[in-house]
Amino acid sequence: MSERVTGPGEPTLEALRQRLVDFAAARRWEPFHTPKNLAAALSVEAGELLEIFQWLTPEQAAAVMSEPERAHRVRDEVADVLAYLLQFCTAVGVDPLEALAAKIERNEHRFPVPEEPADVNSDVGDQPL
Amino acid sequence: MSERVTGPGEPTLEALRQRLVDFAAARRWEPFHTPKNLAAALSVEAGELLEIFQWLTPEQAAAVMSEPERAHRVRDEVADVLAYLLQFCTAVGVDPLEALAAKIERNEHRFPVPEEPADVNSDVGDQPL
Amino acid sequence: MSERVTGPGEPTLEALRQRLVDFAAARRWEPFHTPKNLAAALSVEAGELLEIFQWLTPEQAAAVMSEPERAHRVRDEVADVLAYLLQFCTAVGVDPLEALAAKIERNEHRFPVPEEPADVNSDVGDQPL
Amino acid sequence: MSERVTGPGEPTLEALRQRLVDFAAARRWEPFHTPKNLAAALSVEAGELLEIFQWLTPEQAAAVMSEPERAHRVRDEVADVLAYLLQFCTAVGVDPLEALAAKIERNEHRFPVPEEPADVNSDVGDQPL
Repeated sequence: MSERVTGPGEPTLEALRQRLVDFAAARRWEPFHTPKNLAAALSVEAGELLEIFQWLTPEQAAAVMSEPERAHRVRDEVADVLAYLLQFCTAVGVDPLEALAAKIERNEHRFPVPEEPADVNSDVGDQPL
Repeated sequence: MSERVTGPGEPTLEALRQRLVDFAAARRWEPFHTPKNLAAALSVEAGELLEIFQWLTPEQAAAVMSEPERAHRVRDEVADVLAYLLQFCTAVGVDPLEALAAKIERNEHRFPVPEEPADVNSDVGDQPL
Repeated sequence: MSERVTGPGEPTLEALRQRLVDFAAARRWEPFHTPKNLAAALSVEAGELLEIFQWLTPEQAAAVMSEPERAHRVRDEVADVLAYLLQFCTAVGVDPLEALAAKIERNEHRFPVPEEPADVNSDVGDQPL
Repeated sequence: MSERVTGPGEPTLEALRQRLVDFAAARRWEPFHTPKNLAAALSVEAGELLEIFQWLTPEQAAAVMSEPERAHRVRDEVADVLAYLLQFCTAVGVDPLEALAAKIERNEHRFPVPEEPADVNSDVGDQPL
């Protein structure tokens, strides 16, 4: 899928990050939001996303969004992962968009696009690193 | 920290998501980018971020960005987590910003802000769920 | 595979657990071995085991032990996961064999064996929980 | 804690591994128990164990077993992690005790015990790797 996934009238990542800051402050949760705790929570939520898929065949996994209850869980866990990632970034002062842009640039050098396919009969590239 | 973390002239989340789509397509990595594989990769990268913190005391963890080598690793792992989250969202057709906005709204109802503190001597709220 | 996997002349789980206690004590690592740190380390190592499989097709994954370098990594990560699990159990005073025996008994009640297959044409049971 | 954690009259690790083989066979779960699925399930369960600790202070984490409901969850997640580790070992034909014994021997060479402490005023060793 290469079509647009995020919509034009949406909140920005920065606006959502700020809402999460305000949300935690209003509930006085900041003392819990240490970098180490948030890294643990992020890992836990990524595990919950993976749990949805653990017993699914590739075919079932590909159709996960056509089953309403599973689709809801997927969206919910995506939100949790993104929330903890943003809260972690707040706690350590890292700009996630800048970090990702820098990483993509490094990867474009590390994994140059092959000039022409090594094997013209293959339509699959080498395994990602 | 409540100051702005993402900068004004930055690429948007959607622009980075699209760059990742193009990056994978140019290297013919799409066959590997199934929802199940990407959920696994996301979980693996979240583990690598946690690894930085696993033996650190709370004090060392709070100062993680003042140590250049660790700071670089933190930015790198944040980028990897965000990259796989965006690629996962592409694979399943989920808008991560919309999913997070919806979740924040649900959480604002689930965890209402206490009218006044139960214990005025406490400056820490109940443990987050 | 239902044949014996652990050999008769081997060290017991308890003997290995005790060796890990002595190993950490000799290096004065006990202060790092808190329950929380060890739970994080266990999760990190489980992620490293998963990493070996993240891009493999089911066929490649099934043949993982026929590739010597991957087979070594698998054994190494199995050892790391078991080491941190045993160290975690030491830190919290839980007997892992007793915990597992109790859990298997609970699961035998929760998931009774079907008297006869609901669908005689199916040779796959319901998805595990 | 260096006292014995596993009891003398207990089932062995091998006996429990075999019970898990029989348990899965009786419910016809073997088709789900591929190495890749089991590595994912192991990682998910390790995340559930970590979840118990994610917001706890070091002091609360140290006292986790004195709170009956948390203590039950800890035992339950330890059992789940060990169960999936044993099922993974069955699927790939790895002997977990042998793998751990070999790893401990490698680590004894990699991390020699310091002859005498570098800093006699310190009672904490270098951070584990």
